[in-house]
Amino acid sequence: MSAQAVLPAGKPHPAEFKPRDNPAFILYDKLKTGYEEQPIPELGPDEVLIEIKKTGICGSDVHFYNTGAMGLVKLQEPMCLGHESSGIIVQLGSNSVVGKGTIQLGDKVALEPGVTCRMCTDCRGGCYQICEHMVFAAYPPSRGGTLQRYYKLPADLVYKLPESVGLEYGAMMEPLSVAVHAIANKGQLRTGQNVIIFGAGPVGLLAMGVAKGLGANRIVAVDINQERLQFAKDYAATDVYIPTKQNEGEPRPQYSLRAAQDLLLTLGIPARGPGSIDLVMDATGAEVCIQMGLNAVRPGGTHVQTGFGPPDIQIPFFRVTTEEITIKGGWRYGNGDYPLAIDLVNRGLVNLEPLLTHTFKFKDALEAFEITKAGKDKNGKFVIKCVIDGPE
Amino acid sequence: MSAQAVLPAGKPHPAEFKPRDNPAFILYDKLKTGYEEQPIPELGPDEVLIEIKKTGICGSDVHFYNTGAMGLVKLQEPMCLGHESSGIIVQLGSNSVVGKGTIQLGDKVALEPGVTCRMCTDCRGGCYQICEHMVFAAYPPSRGGTLQRYYKLPADLVYKLPESVGLEYGAMMEPLSVAVHAIANKGQLRTGQNVIIFGAGPVGLLAMGVAKGLGANRIVAVDINQERLQFAKDYAATDVYIPTKQNEGEPRPQYSLRAAQDLLLTLGIPARGPGSIDLVMDATGAEVCIQMGLNAVRPGGTHVQTGFGPPDIQIPFFRVTTEEITIKGGWRYGNGDYPLAIDLVNRGLVNLEPLLTHTFKFKDALEAFEITKAGKDKNGKFVIKCVIDGPE
Amino acid sequence: MSAQAVLPAGKPHPAEFKPRDNPAFILYDKLKTGYEEQPIPELGPDEVLIEIKKTGICGSDVHFYNTGAMGLVKLQEPMCLGHESSGIIVQLGSNSVVGKGTIQLGDKVALEPGVTCRMCTDCRGGCYQICEHMVFAAYPPSRGGTLQRYYKLPADLVYKLPESVGLEYGAMMEPLSVAVHAIANKGQLRTGQNVIIFGAGPVGLLAMGVAKGLGANRIVAVDINQERLQFAKDYAATDVYIPTKQNEGEPRPQYSLRAAQDLLLTLGIPARGPGSIDLVMDATGAEVCIQMGLNAVRPGGTHVQTGFGPPDIQIPFFRVTTEEITIKGGWRYGNGDYPLAIDLVNRGLVNLEPLLTHTFKFKDALEAFEITKAGKDKNGKFVIKCVIDGPE
Amino acid sequence: MSAQAVLPAGKPHPAEFKPRDNPAFILYDKLKTGYEEQPIPELGPDEVLIEIKKTGICGSDVHFYNTGAMGLVKLQEPMCLGHESSGIIVQLGSNSVVGKGTIQLGDKVALEPGVTCRMCTDCRGGCYQICEHMVFAAYPPSRGGTLQRYYKLPADLVYKLPESVGLEYGAMMEPLSVAVHAIANKGQLRTGQNVIIFGAGPVGLLAMGVAKGLGANRIVAVDINQERLQFAKDYAATDVYIPTKQNEGEPRPQYSLRAAQDLLLTLGIPARGPGSIDLVMDATGAEVCIQMGLNAVRPGGTHVQTGFGPPDIQIPFFRVTTEEITIKGGWRYGNGDYPLAIDLVNRGLVNLEPLLTHTFKFKDALEAFEITKAGKDKNGKFVIKCVIDGPE
Repeated sequence: MSAQAVLPAGKPHPAEFKPRDNPAFILYDKLKTGYEEQPIPELGPDEVLIEIKKTGICGSDVHFYNTGAMGLVKLQEPMCLGHESSGIIVQLGSNSVVGKGTIQLGDKVALEPGVTCRMCTDCRGGCYQICEHMVFAAYPPSRGGTLQRYYKLPADLVYKLPESVGLEYGAMMEPLSVAVHAIANKGQLRTGQNVIIFGAGPVGLLAMGVAKGLGANRIVAVDINQERLQFAKDYAATDVYIPTKQNEGEPRPQYSLRAAQDLLLTLGIPARGPGSIDLVMDATGAEVCIQMGLNAVRPGGTHVQTGFGPPDIQIPFFRVTTEEITIKGGWRYGNGDYPLAIDLVNRGLVNLEPLLTHTFKFKDALEAFEITKAGKDKNGKFVIKCVIDGPE
Repeated sequence: MSAQAVLPAGKPHPAEFKPRDNPAFILYDKLKTGYEEQPIPELGPDEVLIEIKKTGICGSDVHFYNTGAMGLVKLQEPMCLGHESSGIIVQLGSNSVVGKGTIQLGDKVALEPGVTCRMCTDCRGGCYQICEHMVFAAYPPSRGGTLQRYYKLPADLVYKLPESVGLEYGAMMEPLSVAVHAIANKGQLRTGQNVIIFGAGPVGLLAMGVAKGLGANRIVAVDINQERLQFAKDYAATDVYIPTKQNEGEPRPQYSLRAAQDLLLTLGIPARGPGSIDLVMDATGAEVCIQMGLNAVRPGGTHVQTGFGPPDIQIPFFRVTTEEITIKGGWRYGNGDYPLAIDLVNRGLVNLEPLLTHTFKFKDALEAFEITKAGKDKNGKFVIKCVIDGPE
Repeated sequence: MSAQAVLPAGKPHPAEFKPRDNPAFILYDKLKTGYEEQPIPELGPDEVLIEIKKTGICGSDVHFYNTGAMGLVKLQEPMCLGHESSGIIVQLGSNSVVGKGTIQLGDKVALEPGVTCRMCTDCRGGCYQICEHMVFAAYPPSRGGTLQRYYKLPADLVYKLPESVGLEYGAMMEPLSVAVHAIANKGQLRTGQNVIIFGAGPVGLLAMGVAKGLGANRIVAVDINQERLQFAKDYAATDVYIPTKQNEGEPRPQYSLRAAQDLLLTLGIPARGPGSIDLVMDATGAEVCIQMGLNAVRPGGTHVQTGFGPPDIQIPFFRVTTEEITIKGGWRYGNGDYPLAIDLVNRGLVNLEPLLTHTFKFKDALEAFEITKAGKDKNGKFVIKCVIDGPE
Repeated sequence: MSAQAVLPAGKPHPAEFKPRDNPAFILYDKLKTGYEEQPIPELGPDEVLIEIKKTGICGSDVHFYNTGAMGLVKLQEPMCLGHESSGIIVQLGSNSVVGKGTIQLGDKVALEPGVTCRMCTDCRGGCYQICEHMVFAAYPPSRGGTLQRYYKLPADLVYKLPESVGLEYGAMMEPLSVAVHAIANKGQLRTGQNVIIFGAGPVGLLAMGVAKGLGANRIVAVDINQERLQFAKDYAATDVYIPTKQNEGEPRPQYSLRAAQDLLLTLGIPARGPGSIDLVMDATGAEVCIQMGLNAVRPGGTHVQTGFGPPDIQIPFFRVTTEEITIKGGWRYGNGDYPLAIDLVNRGLVNLEPLLTHTFKFKDALEAFEITKAGKDKNGKFVIKCVIDGPE
């Protein structure tokens, strides 16, 4: 790409960059981790180098840690983990004053960890999240994750954080952008609409936060865990629901239909018309949740899927057909999602503080993975989001 | 509704309307039919009276005839069958010069057989096809179908046929509008796009015709019947495919994935990027077809469902999620679908002639149902669309 | 329309309705008003009768009062004024339990004062606001306005007010819906976007309130009146701007361009990219404002017009063309606008209280028109919105 | 941009590329041209080198030739002219097997002559045509045009031409893509809709061709030249109209309104409802045309502007507001426009042959500019599109 011809003359590599060591937290095989020195990335003209300060642990990190795989994607060689990160800009490529504004040395930034080809139809058409050439941090095959000191990205994939937003919350912009993508971008939630969100884990809770931040009317949280629902209620949900135990013995499609009807009845939500459910977002991947959602959403409504469960799911297709329901996949995040995520946090429309439950030093990364895997810490406290410091 | 206040002064009921008898073809119970006199409908101010001239038989008519039900909808009392009709305007309500233009006595018209409330959010929002107050011809509970001499409708639900379009083709505007709704309205097919259509029955064939009329590039017909596929190829498909026999023993999700891959490979269609499948329309309702379609459509592509099969269908949800595929239900037809259907036929962009395979007299309606049910006539000729004359 | 066939059996006319007199405030000619008894409307099956409790005065009412015309629309015969109203349901048509829910006797409602044909392409396609058969209250030719005791409407054009919303604010749902239509519906404002609103009169202020309620980031109010701007700032604007006096002598297009540039520079708003103006809404109709807006909006942005000024306006078309700016007309309100308006007020996202500056008794209606025309009351206080009680 | 990391290993620079000389047709000042040797471009990893075979002359080329400027854009230094080109791939950058498919040595391609930054919000959001970093061929400041032997572009900006499409028509994909962008992309024309196109010059005629190719119903060509209109009628228009001489003395807004009404009346087109004008595209930039279009389009319809005239244009804004008309700028072309243009020609849906009226040798480039400027050749034949061969 003729970027050199296109872009204004960049800055020279700053003389003051004195690289230190670059230790990385590596997954060798399932449950087998260690630390290893990595070479310091060399910048292309449009890239910037970030010193990583905070990295959150994602469910996919834990999947790789625990099983050596996530879905069909398998660990192929030792891989540095981590992709939910923030840091400080320490070096600029020769062209890096480009695109969405001026990134400068010393800027506090959130990282968008997927690099795309920018030349395929999807990239050019505004859907870069499904670019087939995507190289994503800590997702094989890949150039490794962000649990190391230095990481490089194209200059447009780092987003300056406002003064008010701390680096630990900067690291949470990645999962928050997943929620923004599902609720605002794919779900097109409008102020005043009503939404059900299945799953009160990190992404589900963030989705409730986004729905609240966008002015949703009723935000119904569904989970099987009463404690999580209480958390959701305190956080952003207006209503909570545990799937009924009634009819549990029935075949799943019938059970799900009855549970959806019970949800609406219990919460006093009409099946259609004013006050009915405009949008469902499923962050669980569980078949019963997806079925419930598709039975609870109003005719003409939308279901957005972000959670992963079994690869094949049975859904009430007769209802989808006759009630003209739309189902959309929501994959990671795309253009505009990070800026909206940061804006929502900066203006207090989404509060990340209650979700950041645990922090660890870089040397204790393994412990962070273990408690995230367990879901609770030694004191029995829920783990929602665990953030690891960069190397000291 | 204060239509009287709103609308221009209508015409008086024409003195020349001399009603004849109104015989109707009635379904009493499954497989039990007969003829019966019906009262002549009295017109409200915004309605028109049509003398029915031609009525096509739809799969749903045959379902009711054969089983007394269609899906969850059951025959509740004797019901006049038929809803795919054309006719001549014989009487005008006092306000009937309204809405979409001037309907006049003697006009040759196609009938849109679903009457909606016009007051709910769906009607007012441009999605009247999912109005919960819909009263649809020959669909219980209902005021009966169109296999009788006289039928009344609101004046905006009859569409004047151009000179060039015969009444027998006017009767086919109903299923053609289903295809228009799926392909043009819900599927948003654009000139140059590529589409797979599952099922080479009447609606599938019409969908291929619409895709061709809209300028689709490749139109792939999939069916298990070689003869039907040959018909599709001669009619509008650019490519045909019979699902491979390979891997038939595998579990269905795997089989469907392989069949989708085989389809693309066999026809030289890329899985994504230029030339890939933008749109899938399933007119079968068969699980294997729906699975194949969702595996064959490109990332970011759309699947529109019109066919009915089992109420619950297992779909490759992991792919839907990670490739951001959109699934939409397509139910009957909505605003603009009849006019486009008529326009496509009038301008020769869709040719209905090859699809109209059989015609019957009103007194032989039962025979029409029997051969439609059988799928072939006594001479072994395929039945695509069978049209019955109005009462003599 | 065969509503009788479609709808569930309605309620009988309640025996307890004991009509009182129906005095109306009539405009005979410009500046010539009086009171007159009107017949009590008779209900059609889908209609309801409302006892009017509060009516706001709109700029168009004042235009008719002051000049006997508004734009090309002229008073043709004596006309009851008023169309921004709320009231109590006192009688139900025989079918009136329809559409968007159950309206009941005694309900406190806001009135949507435009009755459409429900049969044309625009009505059926979800754009009923441009129905050519629209009959609008106090807009010739018409059946008269709402400044009388009794008014009838189709049941779907009254909206139940929540407990928390007083009748005086219910009367303000009409202008608020104009703002909702412009900002949310036509403008598609999303949380986090930036907007300029020209004109700090009632509709402009309401538009700022809506933008704030929907989560806009920067809301720039432009007006030539410092006091109005201060009001706007206290109310909902984040920034205010009085067009520069510099370059006033230049031809208008150049002046407007410089003023737009000055606005952006003064407020530190970039001309494009992050933080730039996504949406402009003009509530003035003034050529200079429209020109400024089209020069200040970012490339690819949107301008929505609601204000009326000269019928023909000179705009920077070269910029519109090369920067792919979209201009949309925003006319009254359409499907979903009243419900969102009510929801925003009910949840405290829009605060109507500061805008309701004056109230009058029915017998003092003329005084209300006079101070609205003057723009200030005797004490020099701004008139934003003036509401008149229904007849005692 | 870390393209090197992202993309599959490319091909080595082919040993067989034996560069010849690189003569270019240069504009030194208005009306002052000459030939000059240029250096052969060096490829970046994602670029390809094209040997130019055919270049069409565009109105903007003629503007620069004739006046040294186009609109506000002025010639700053000697510049190679030309941007409507096709050619043969003679060299591949090291990464050039990317994006939209495999471009190979020897491929016959059409060139998209605008290189964008791929990193700004507009590029990433699917609107790269308004990228502020756009570097466009023969548009100052720029790296020069295509009237030379060798030209380099990013690999995704060359489009392989099908066997059936000759290089001279390949050179016309650029203006055809302008028409596709206006009619299909911005105008969203659907099969069966009705359109008016103002201006029967190259872009207007191509727009008529595109409208026909997309299945428009009525295509009304408006021009002041009877011969051009006859050409349009023979080419793709269904109706033609010369603005009435009546009322020419009236002020322009009134004249334009009457002319619009006369157009509709003369051609029997209703002002709204079935058969009315859904879309207007203006390729003239003339105020009277823009006014006529906005008065002729139906309520709720769309006007797309591509032509350039005076920078400021007076439009009927009252009508735009009250009839909710949408105005959109259409600038060059964006994602998907070239592929659709090529597809339309390849499948015979657009016929370029009648529009290619003149061809010249490279050494006679000046003559090509002179007759394009004159609009007619020495024999009095219209010049629609003039194509110049690459250097021999």
